[in-house]
Amino acid sequence: MAQITSTDLYRILLAARPVGAPKLSDFRAETAPVPQAGEGEFLVRIIWLSLDPYMRGRMDDAKSYADPVPIGGVMEGGAVGEVIASNQTGFQVGDFVNGAFGWQSHAISNGEMVRKLDPNLAPISTALGVLGMPGLTAFVGLNDHGRPKAGETLAVSAATGAVGSVVGQLGKAYGLRVVGVAGGADKCAYAVDELGFDACIDHRAAPDGKALRKDLASVCPDGIDIYFENVAGKTLEAVVPLMNVGGRIPVCGMIAWYNGGGLGAGVTAGVNLLPQVWRTILTRRLNVRGFIIFDHYDRFPAFVQEVSGHIQSGAVKYRESIAEGLEAAPEAFIKLLEGGNFGKQLVAVSPDPTRA
Amino acid sequence: MAQITSTDLYRILLAARPVGAPKLSDFRAETAPVPQAGEGEFLVRIIWLSLDPYMRGRMDDAKSYADPVPIGGVMEGGAVGEVIASNQTGFQVGDFVNGAFGWQSHAISNGEMVRKLDPNLAPISTALGVLGMPGLTAFVGLNDHGRPKAGETLAVSAATGAVGSVVGQLGKAYGLRVVGVAGGADKCAYAVDELGFDACIDHRAAPDGKALRKDLASVCPDGIDIYFENVAGKTLEAVVPLMNVGGRIPVCGMIAWYNGGGLGAGVTAGVNLLPQVWRTILTRRLNVRGFIIFDHYDRFPAFVQEVSGHIQSGAVKYRESIAEGLEAAPEAFIKLLEGGNFGKQLVAVSPDPTRA
Repeated sequence: MAQITSTDLYRILLAARPVGAPKLSDFRAETAPVPQAGEGEFLVRIIWLSLDPYMRGRMDDAKSYADPVPIGGVMEGGAVGEVIASNQTGFQVGDFVNGAFGWQSHAISNGEMVRKLDPNLAPISTALGVLGMPGLTAFVGLNDHGRPKAGETLAVSAATGAVGSVVGQLGKAYGLRVVGVAGGADKCAYAVDELGFDACIDHRAAPDGKALRKDLASVCPDGIDIYFENVAGKTLEAVVPLMNVGGRIPVCGMIAWYNGGGLGAGVTAGVNLLPQVWRTILTRRLNVRGFIIFDHYDRFPAFVQEVSGHIQSGAVKYRESIAEGLEAAPEAFIKLLEGGNFGKQLVAVSPDPTRA
Repeated sequence: MAQITSTDLYRILLAARPVGAPKLSDFRAETAPVPQAGEGEFLVRIIWLSLDPYMRGRMDDAKSYADPVPIGGVMEGGAVGEVIASNQTGFQVGDFVNGAFGWQSHAISNGEMVRKLDPNLAPISTALGVLGMPGLTAFVGLNDHGRPKAGETLAVSAATGAVGSVVGQLGKAYGLRVVGVAGGADKCAYAVDELGFDACIDHRAAPDGKALRKDLASVCPDGIDIYFENVAGKTLEAVVPLMNVGGRIPVCGMIAWYNGGGLGAGVTAGVNLLPQVWRTILTRRLNVRGFIIFDHYDRFPAFVQEVSGHIQSGAVKYRESIAEGLEAAPEAFIKLLEGGNFGKQLVAVSPDPTRA
């Protein structure tokens, strides 16, 4: 990659559409002069970039809920930065802002869909995680689509991820039995010891969906009332037979299937899962509800009010996994899709003046 | 089978659990003396027996929403009959009644879960179809789970069946575009010409799910907002890609999968449909809702009030397919599962004194 000088804009483009898991060669870095803010615009120095599984979908040319990133286009992504030049009366130099600024070191904005952050309220990086889109996703999915009732059992996959960790901790705050599924003994220990989950199953220790089902059944003596779906694959295969009558499945993501290819690693071979899943939906009267957080921004005020309180009280904790430098973003993203992150995945693009 | 005298009770038992499609040998007929009504009981002479796809599930030993019929037990089923002896003050000789009397010529009841019928309001056989459980299923599934809005497109499989025909006609009454899927040109012509559907696709003319999807797409220019699921199999495969954002799928049945086996006839070979279906649920924010009518009996009064009005106005029509004699029930049931019926499948067990 080219040498970078601090006066350059540095950005990461989509070089090729991935076939299966993305490779480093699917990305391309380039530098350019830092642009100037025009009339009514301001210039942002990016501090934190968010990496999220949904970005995998944008790399495909398939019909989805948003347009794909074009080949040669800047990778999309939410970020937090500082205004360093402004011709926009609503945004002053020194303001911290959150917006869809993309995988780059600097961005020009007119302020549309940009939110100002108060660094005294919470660390500005939380605007990308526990107090940002992942937290809102957890809040809306669990409350509006999961409709939890105290005493019920909640299962959540990707349990220590940016969304799953908030889902589980909110579940505990609401009086649910919370069972996580995560990849690795360290993540499971963290879910139970730090986040307060009642149990957490390591899906990497289960060779297939059937084994995972047994592990899950052993910690869900009363079955599962809510399955917060982040992963699909063998976790879905394991959970479905344990769902109780009247159960709810908010479908937030399916990371096991983002990279394409059959039913995903570990799903019992030769089994067509759809008839079994469809039959269970009928006989157990399940409510399966896909949702995309873009449809639910109206819930942001209620979310921030409740969850910032939980953070202050210690009921909701969060963990960040930080990749250093924008040039590390592609590798960190590839790792994220493999479950290699531990906590909300961020990229430290430039120094955060609010951190000690 | 044994000779039957009119003074005998005649009944049909489950002889063996079917493997795949039921065979005649899975049923067994027997005669017995007509039982006497005890204290607080009454004796019913069965006139009409209802045959419904859900009965296939009761023949399996699998966990479902209701207990299986035991081997050697009387086949379960709703029926309409006349009280011919009574020691129950609430029920008089000559009353017409509807209850889960089973596949038999006579039944003893204490009146629990039995409903009296007024033969002047509608033909008593309609208590098993358009004004009975199938009609209520259509009403609840479309209204409560489909949440229709005028101008939307509704697709319904098994379109001329007892449930589907009411779903589609209610859809037209609510101002929807209604597209049926049925097996055979005669059924499709009936759906359009008699029931007033906007279009009906003959799934037998489509060799597989992909072909069926093209046929459906051609009559759903604005996509599908509600898919009322009675069938699954290749119809499900065809419908899913056409679902609009925010679409609803009330799951009422899956007749293509009741007889076991993989994905059912005509599903594109080698395709595991679950990832595609799950992905569409997410990206189109679908709401898939399984339901069993037993949970919704509280909706009966609202249903009868609305649908009896539609019948009187001619907005809702119905058609019956009648097998003559209880001994014909097994064959008629096997045919029903193959789609060989045309309209609500009934068995004429004994003469209906209210019919001309």
